[in-house]
Amino acid sequence: MVYLTRLEHFNAAHKLFNPSWSIEQNEQAFGKCANENWHGHNYELYVTVKGQPDPGTGFVFDVKQLSLLIREQVVEKVDHMNLNVDVDFMKGKMCSTENLAVGIWNELMKHLPAGVQLHCVKLYETPRIYVEYYGE
Amino acid sequence: MVYLTRLEHFNAAHKLFNPSWSIEQNEQAFGKCANENWHGHNYELYVTVKGQPDPGTGFVFDVKQLSLLIREQVVEKVDHMNLNVDVDFMKGKMCSTENLAVGIWNELMKHLPAGVQLHCVKLYETPRIYVEYYGE
Amino acid sequence: MVYLTRLEHFNAAHKLFNPSWSIEQNEQAFGKCANENWHGHNYELYVTVKGQPDPGTGFVFDVKQLSLLIREQVVEKVDHMNLNVDVDFMKGKMCSTENLAVGIWNELMKHLPAGVQLHCVKLYETPRIYVEYYGE
Amino acid sequence: MVYLTRLEHFNAAHKLFNPSWSIEQNEQAFGKCANENWHGHNYELYVTVKGQPDPGTGFVFDVKQLSLLIREQVVEKVDHMNLNVDVDFMKGKMCSTENLAVGIWNELMKHLPAGVQLHCVKLYETPRIYVEYYGE
Amino acid sequence: MVYLTRLEHFNAAHKLFNPSWSIEQNEQAFGKCANENWHGHNYELYVTVKGQPDPGTGFVFDVKQLSLLIREQVVEKVDHMNLNVDVDFMKGKMCSTENLAVGIWNELMKHLPAGVQLHCVKLYETPRIYVEYYGE
Amino acid sequence: MVYLTRLEHFNAAHKLFNPSWSIEQNEQAFGKCANENWHGHNYELYVTVKGQPDPGTGFVFDVKQLSLLIREQVVEKVDHMNLNVDVDFMKGKMCSTENLAVGIWNELMKHLPAGVQLHCVKLYETPRIYVEYYGE
Repeated sequence: MVYLTRLEHFNAAHKLFNPSWSIEQNEQAFGKCANENWHGHNYELYVTVKGQPDPGTGFVFDVKQLSLLIREQVVEKVDHMNLNVDVDFMKGKMCSTENLAVGIWNELMKHLPAGVQLHCVKLYETPRIYVEYYGE
Repeated sequence: MVYLTRLEHFNAAHKLFNPSWSIEQNEQAFGKCANENWHGHNYELYVTVKGQPDPGTGFVFDVKQLSLLIREQVVEKVDHMNLNVDVDFMKGKMCSTENLAVGIWNELMKHLPAGVQLHCVKLYETPRIYVEYYGE
Repeated sequence: MVYLTRLEHFNAAHKLFNPSWSIEQNEQAFGKCANENWHGHNYELYVTVKGQPDPGTGFVFDVKQLSLLIREQVVEKVDHMNLNVDVDFMKGKMCSTENLAVGIWNELMKHLPAGVQLHCVKLYETPRIYVEYYGE
Repeated sequence: MVYLTRLEHFNAAHKLFNPSWSIEQNEQAFGKCANENWHGHNYELYVTVKGQPDPGTGFVFDVKQLSLLIREQVVEKVDHMNLNVDVDFMKGKMCSTENLAVGIWNELMKHLPAGVQLHCVKLYETPRIYVEYYGE
Repeated sequence: MVYLTRLEHFNAAHKLFNPSWSIEQNEQAFGKCANENWHGHNYELYVTVKGQPDPGTGFVFDVKQLSLLIREQVVEKVDHMNLNVDVDFMKGKMCSTENLAVGIWNELMKHLPAGVQLHCVKLYETPRIYVEYYGE
Repeated sequence: MVYLTRLEHFNAAHKLFNPSWSIEQNEQAFGKCANENWHGHNYELYVTVKGQPDPGTGFVFDVKQLSLLIREQVVEKVDHMNLNVDVDFMKGKMCSTENLAVGIWNELMKHLPAGVQLHCVKLYETPRIYVEYYGE
């Protein structure tokens, strides 16, 4: 079993704001992240798949196809977007990095070719904060 | 003459949108960056001062004071903010990285102690795009 | 289960020196790292916790609280310190990166709120050497 | 159990080309990577070993010995080499990053001292693509 | 005057070999870099232009156009290529990083729009070696 | 004129302490950096030379010779050392990064071959603080 990882990048705006709470509760829970006028991040997205290298190509999965799949199924939907407003798969969810990583996992799972196993979605919100999700 | 640089970090939302143009003109000029719902970045800000090391301390300038000054005069005003909406020193300006770097230079110049010379403001918008301004 | 990681930083002096050995044995075992006058490092500390995202916040754990906890329980005790001399939780231990990572794990375990699980302490001694400890 | 990782570096040329296929098949499978005149990479190699810290040294394994072992058993054989042509342990294999990581694992396994367990070989082909192999 | 920099990436093979010298002279001058079977690198290319921000856009130059120009005029010609064999603008030149940076400068100069000034080509051959050229 | 830069690395202990001041004055000026038991850093040292590429080699200067020269004339003297105690060229000087960069410049100047011009010494004390010196 070999693990193959590809890094992609996107920029987005968001805020941390629970609409069922008061503004005061939101400010207490999220501080500056609750700014109603939004803030944003450069997200770094690492996607890891696993499998046995194909004898003909030596590949677990063609990394150019992996890059294309991430761009089409994830980056196109979130890059230069407002995560709270513009992104279908985040509708009705808190826009935490945790939930965003799980949402990205679910988008990728719908589109991976048979025989390729998704192993991990790792998402940097800032150079000092990241989240990992393994699907369980 | 020795040059001393300190890196600070902030996150912000913005859009590239010229209010005196039509939406079509904005989209043609700025593409996805014109998204009316905003996007955002992790900005990395390098501030360089220059001077002769003080014989008593060996310092051009105390780097902790430099860090504090950048945080108080810049980061407090832009971190977790919407650059187009929340930031006084960007009012009426296009929120390009170029203009933001010039704006940051001007904020710092108002508050640097006498005898400390500002040399450069270098601002990363993404890990692949940065701007430098030397005050002239 | 989602994994959340926060990076913090500290600088410290240390030496690798076993007091129950002769100087020659120490020099043979540790080379330049045994320099009696000390050397030092910029340590990069990654702390990973795990859990299920809270429905109200979307957080496994508030990353600002995690940062504060690491700073108060670890960074305050080791930053700008001599690890062999100044740090209570390293007393009587060899100051290897391995032992330092285990010591940091133990400090964090005493202070994590109930319901938050510590997953990993990852500690860079230099950009080319790091250690990971998972508590078992 | 503590995990210790050392990073080493090498540069090499390669191409992705299956000699049992036609040129057209190779170009379809590998695109630009099939360029018959070769291309190349700066590889970043992370080797992780695991074990219990020795009471006398505090080490899982002496990181200088680990560095020396990686340099002698791997870097000497691949650095400034053509992976398809010059490297014995890649003979007859596709020069994918996947197969290279497995080949490096096998070289290291032959030479690790008794009592030191190899945990992972992680190999960056570019800053955006890496592979991990855990020996199973 | 504001300076704007864009980072692009390419991979290539090369060797350092002066065809007017003997093999022995080449090995003495270039060591492992003279390997007749080639080696290669991940090159990181920083291109800096300078000018005054446009009042309408806030841009010195549209960074997406800059990226496209670098990709079309440089990356297309060198990515996944053999610099000694496949690249017209390096024909008859030693394939040092110095000469490659100068060659890239010259390619860019032919295609920059009027009014945009090229300031610097900075080229990393490895994470520890880079070259800068300012056109004079 | 082309500029060539090589990165080298060393680890060292130091403290910021002016022996002609009281302990209170030192603590006020230097805070935690005045800890009498020392602290330390991983220093990253960038050395830039400049010149015209040699027609035979394509080199401004052989980067392996540059690396060797930095290692012999600087790294050997400071790596795993106490900068205040063990380093001749820092004797009697405050151990600030500013003074260390100037000291390194002076050491290199004594040993550069004729015809090679030293352009810049850039020294990172931490990933967020660096100093540059151009010899004037």
